[in-house]
Amino acid sequence: MDDFVERPLASEQVFDGALLSVHRDRVRLPDGREASREYIRHPGAAIVLPVLDDGRLLMVRQYRYPVGVETLEFPAGKIDAGEPSLRTAHRELLEETGHEAGRMEFAFHVLPCVGYADERIDFYLARGLRHVGHPGEDGEFLAVESVSLDTLLAAADRGELTEAKTLIGVYWLARRDR
Amino acid sequence: MDDFVERPLASEQVFDGALLSVHRDRVRLPDGREASREYIRHPGAAIVLPVLDDGRLLMVRQYRYPVGVETLEFPAGKIDAGEPSLRTAHRELLEETGHEAGRMEFAFHVLPCVGYADERIDFYLARGLRHVGHPGEDGEFLAVESVSLDTLLAAADRGELTEAKTLIGVYWLARRDR
Repeated sequence: MDDFVERPLASEQVFDGALLSVHRDRVRLPDGREASREYIRHPGAAIVLPVLDDGRLLMVRQYRYPVGVETLEFPAGKIDAGEPSLRTAHRELLEETGHEAGRMEFAFHVLPCVGYADERIDFYLARGLRHVGHPGEDGEFLAVESVSLDTLLAAADRGELTEAKTLIGVYWLARRDR
Repeated sequence: MDDFVERPLASEQVFDGALLSVHRDRVRLPDGREASREYIRHPGAAIVLPVLDDGRLLMVRQYRYPVGVETLEFPAGKIDAGEPSLRTAHRELLEETGHEAGRMEFAFHVLPCVGYADERIDFYLARGLRHVGHPGEDGEFLAVESVSLDTLLAAADRGELTEAKTLIGVYWLARRDR
């Protein structure tokens, strides 16, 4: 197989927003020519697949402004500076659902936007869940729901589960259960 | 269920790059307060799940600079201005693999980055594939491969299929075949 690697020659931050950091790099293409690559630098994220003792899954319903729709998602969030993703997983589970997990295992990772972001999402499987109250985060509006995997798969089969990382989590749980 | 909708008050383009367009909107939160939302405006994309007559799937191997890894992906690309996504699907299949499809059916759509992009990816199932030569696109370095669904599922089970939209396509095809 050919070597398709593009080697960085120079990197520049071309936008530094409140949420998004955009970089533009000059790269050396495999054929020796130069090209420009523009992409988001993202700290990475963790998502939790929280399995309750009765087998249902803890989800959060929220409004996602960029796409203008309400989504049903597994608890997830961005990694804070210097934070291991396992800690992000525990933190987001607590902040978004008010639950602690007795067991939190790394499952796999996914690259959600390879064309224009360096984001990596670490998936964790959480069990031994315990409700410890709902601290919440200022300015986060969400509703916690417990949903069966069958209900989620039926929604996926109807094309109604459109949030990518949650859809991947649902399919992964179904493969694991088969 | 509560109304979580965030209503736009004002929108401003804060970065206009060669690839990325970043907008920052002022929004009205459900509790009446105001907040800022920063996100990528993306034209949308189409991805093709191309099933060969022998059941194998046509894939492309390419280097993804933002994440610094070589990925195995289904043919996909951005929607051109004014282009219906069905046409994008046919175009990307031809450009990336040199194949035409006798049948191209819309399957479902996915929102890959709800936190910071408005991108929507339309998934198409392509059959009746015919090799018509490889036009290629200037500056695109990729290798075409034919891979069985079992091989892809095994890679997914090992956590080695990390490109999100391709992983979703593989899981979707496996559910369809079950």
